[in-house]
Amino acid sequence: MMSQTDAPEKTPLVKEIPPKAKDLSDWYQAVCYKAELVSLAPVRGCVVLRPYGMGLWERLQGALDSRFKATGHENAYFPLLIPESLLMREAEHVEGFAPEVAWVTHGGNEKLAERLAIRPTSEVIIGTMYAEWVQSYRDLPILINQWANVMRWEKRTRPFLRTAEFLWQEGHTAHATETEAAAEVAQMLEVYREVAEDICAVPVIKGEKSSTERFAGATHTFSIEALMPDGKALQAATSHELGQNFAKAYDIKFAAEDQSIRHAWTTSWGMSWRMLGALIMVHGDDRGLRIPPKMAPIEAVIVPIVRGESEDVTRAARDLFATLRAAGIRAKLDERDLRPGNKFSDWEMRGVPLRIELGAKDLEAGTATLVRRDKEKGAEGGKIAVPLADVAARIPGLLDDIQTELYAQARAFLDGHTLSDTDRAEFLAHCKNRSGMVEIAWCGRPACEAAVKAETSATTRNTRPLGDAAGPCVACGEPATVRAYFAQSY
Amino acid sequence: MMSQTDAPEKTPLVKEIPPKAKDLSDWYQAVCYKAELVSLAPVRGCVVLRPYGMGLWERLQGALDSRFKATGHENAYFPLLIPESLLMREAEHVEGFAPEVAWVTHGGNEKLAERLAIRPTSEVIIGTMYAEWVQSYRDLPILINQWANVMRWEKRTRPFLRTAEFLWQEGHTAHATETEAAAEVAQMLEVYREVAEDICAVPVIKGEKSSTERFAGATHTFSIEALMPDGKALQAATSHELGQNFAKAYDIKFAAEDQSIRHAWTTSWGMSWRMLGALIMVHGDDRGLRIPPKMAPIEAVIVPIVRGESEDVTRAARDLFATLRAAGIRAKLDERDLRPGNKFSDWEMRGVPLRIELGAKDLEAGTATLVRRDKEKGAEGGKIAVPLADVAARIPGLLDDIQTELYAQARAFLDGHTLSDTDRAEFLAHCKNRSGMVEIAWCGRPACEAAVKAETSATTRNTRPLGDAAGPCVACGEPATVRAYFAQSY
Repeated sequence: MMSQTDAPEKTPLVKEIPPKAKDLSDWYQAVCYKAELVSLAPVRGCVVLRPYGMGLWERLQGALDSRFKATGHENAYFPLLIPESLLMREAEHVEGFAPEVAWVTHGGNEKLAERLAIRPTSEVIIGTMYAEWVQSYRDLPILINQWANVMRWEKRTRPFLRTAEFLWQEGHTAHATETEAAAEVAQMLEVYREVAEDICAVPVIKGEKSSTERFAGATHTFSIEALMPDGKALQAATSHELGQNFAKAYDIKFAAEDQSIRHAWTTSWGMSWRMLGALIMVHGDDRGLRIPPKMAPIEAVIVPIVRGESEDVTRAARDLFATLRAAGIRAKLDERDLRPGNKFSDWEMRGVPLRIELGAKDLEAGTATLVRRDKEKGAEGGKIAVPLADVAARIPGLLDDIQTELYAQARAFLDGHTLSDTDRAEFLAHCKNRSGMVEIAWCGRPACEAAVKAETSATTRNTRPLGDAAGPCVACGEPATVRAYFAQSY
Repeated sequence: MMSQTDAPEKTPLVKEIPPKAKDLSDWYQAVCYKAELVSLAPVRGCVVLRPYGMGLWERLQGALDSRFKATGHENAYFPLLIPESLLMREAEHVEGFAPEVAWVTHGGNEKLAERLAIRPTSEVIIGTMYAEWVQSYRDLPILINQWANVMRWEKRTRPFLRTAEFLWQEGHTAHATETEAAAEVAQMLEVYREVAEDICAVPVIKGEKSSTERFAGATHTFSIEALMPDGKALQAATSHELGQNFAKAYDIKFAAEDQSIRHAWTTSWGMSWRMLGALIMVHGDDRGLRIPPKMAPIEAVIVPIVRGESEDVTRAARDLFATLRAAGIRAKLDERDLRPGNKFSDWEMRGVPLRIELGAKDLEAGTATLVRRDKEKGAEGGKIAVPLADVAARIPGLLDDIQTELYAQARAFLDGHTLSDTDRAEFLAHCKNRSGMVEIAWCGRPACEAAVKAETSATTRNTRPLGDAAGPCVACGEPATVRAYFAQSY
């Protein structure tokens, strides 16, 4: 065995990333690749989700899936391919998705009689099946979720934010009444808010999309929107009332209690790995990721500081590791043959919430040194000596603190960058300068939204009821109908 | 509220399936659709995995995934599409898979410069990434698993057994030495055996595939093979040593400790939802599925027997349900507005291991009636009156008994239909008549296997070392080199 000091390092672990404040996009790409969340794939527009990135996705899946099941949903799996003729039935939907569909034209050595689309979303295939499964009001509601890969032919590749293939979940439900469908859509939007804020520590604004930003084929689209450090908004999840549009196009009918035949009311709702992109941008810093503990594949990493005679330290580190695992903590012991400093920066890059340093000096003192990833280097409370016997008991509280602290920082940023404007010039300047979520009384007209966009690149992110405050639209002067958040967006 | 006796039934729950012994294939298709595991999809060769079928798949995923992680593997996700030029690099692999690949030729409105294959398996794309990730012996081993949909353009559709798109997991590992790679392959084959036998209660035979049956591009393929009630074998999982074939084709090289540059040794191993097909065929009976408790999405279903005045029964059933859930039992309470007899046959069709009947008479006696799905109607021990307060405590033991009993029945069938032949005529007759797994001393020659196949439709399922018993091949008289199991197969 070589000692760690003279070990040759084929792949140096100290990885440079550009400062976050300088160019968020450069920083973002660098951290995604250098923290080994993803690799660029040899297929246009696609990335590989590496084990550490998959660890994040599995945490998000777990948080969502348990909530879907708790609210009465079941998982199912529908085919990847959709015959072109089927896709064509809901006119708005086709118009929205056809330009970005990948087409299968050959199977084995034969040309297919009909082209098959790789699903860009599954309303069509699922609606077709629901038509078969639903006959009576007794068959409703149908509450199904699918975990799946979907494809939208994109020209640009940005890990998690924009890739041709991506992973997501899509819920699809059918109901007897519009009221029930609306309640479902609101319920799932609230699930998304909860997962974004309480699990990912990313504060969001809930609201309804404008008609321009609505899902192709929906009657109402709701979203949660997060604010990125560069002042651009990121849509983190959507929940759609599809009215009876898909039920009519795909013939989802049922006999009601009074024997009349009616069309069902359907919904769909989805969150993708895009949520991970928001988490990365909101929390990361110049040293790399900072992962909120509830999302962390590794909550605490033990780094033994081994110099020369090392048996005691190694044994103590292994004992501590076993203790933490037994206590249900997602711990990792890093015994790689590398310098401790390199390990530190490696785990900082990966955003592990707690680092536990254990060296000969610690051992003499009967302590371990716990280092919080959420704190700046040298900040108060960032480095804590904890008696070895107490480490396991202290960790859950520290992780809670870190979760709370990351959320508080992000919340402060969002609150500090949510502006309420009444002056047109100020509103347009805020939109143009990416000053944050810019809220105004708004008329709701597509033409007004288009004019703002042409001038500032900003669009509505979402809207909420006007309340009592009647008055003119800040953007155009026509009567306001809603309050809207404008921002440039990802 | 209507009472259950005059409730109109839109979709009668009593569903007929043909007897299992008469035509296994008819029975199988009927039970898959009528137990609502799957629906036929409006896409050639594809099925929809319905919530109850997904429940089975999620149980299987859980059993496999926890074992993969316990043996040091991590999950990742690789692109669905593989550029044609990349697929072409490993000659045998292409030859094996090209005839059954679906091709994407258009993205959005443009024709692609290069066709993209929908992955039939992912050695190619994963090998390409490993070449990028591996530089040094320190980067090895790579131990990755992927849960994915894959596509092989099949003409026939048989739920779980043969569909164009299917769900599976594929493990892909890279090692510094052949010895390590071989150990990995053996380890994962044993994981498959354990999940098949201990979780799915399906006994299997482990062994190595003949050269004819080997995976395209592998140096050694190992399999577990189950025996179906019609005497045909079903390959339930495979584990492949890929030698350095893929490492050479995709350039996976590393600097060894002595600084020499070497090609890695890679493996792959997979189990698909086909395993569910084996479980269904092995355990089902004329009333439908019989699901081994460890695989059951619902372990116990409570059916309240409600006539007229029902409040007491309803309350008791709900209390019991809450008690079982709190005890960690996957319980379901069936309060549908249907006749109890219809509910019984519905849950029998779905193979729920335990039914708990609770009526006014039971309540008077302070008991519930537990009915085991593994037993014939009227069989001893099939129906047990249990004091209400003891039900939760009794269930785990009963589920263990059912798991054990289903395995014992399947084991007895396999043992009773594993034949060891030394006479050529008898061997051929056994193969032709589908008498079971027919073991012989065998020469190992493709020509001999082809001759047996031409005469009997049987092929080798897998083989094991000859041991000390040298002698002639039972099929052709040439010197035997292995012992082989022959059978017709799915």
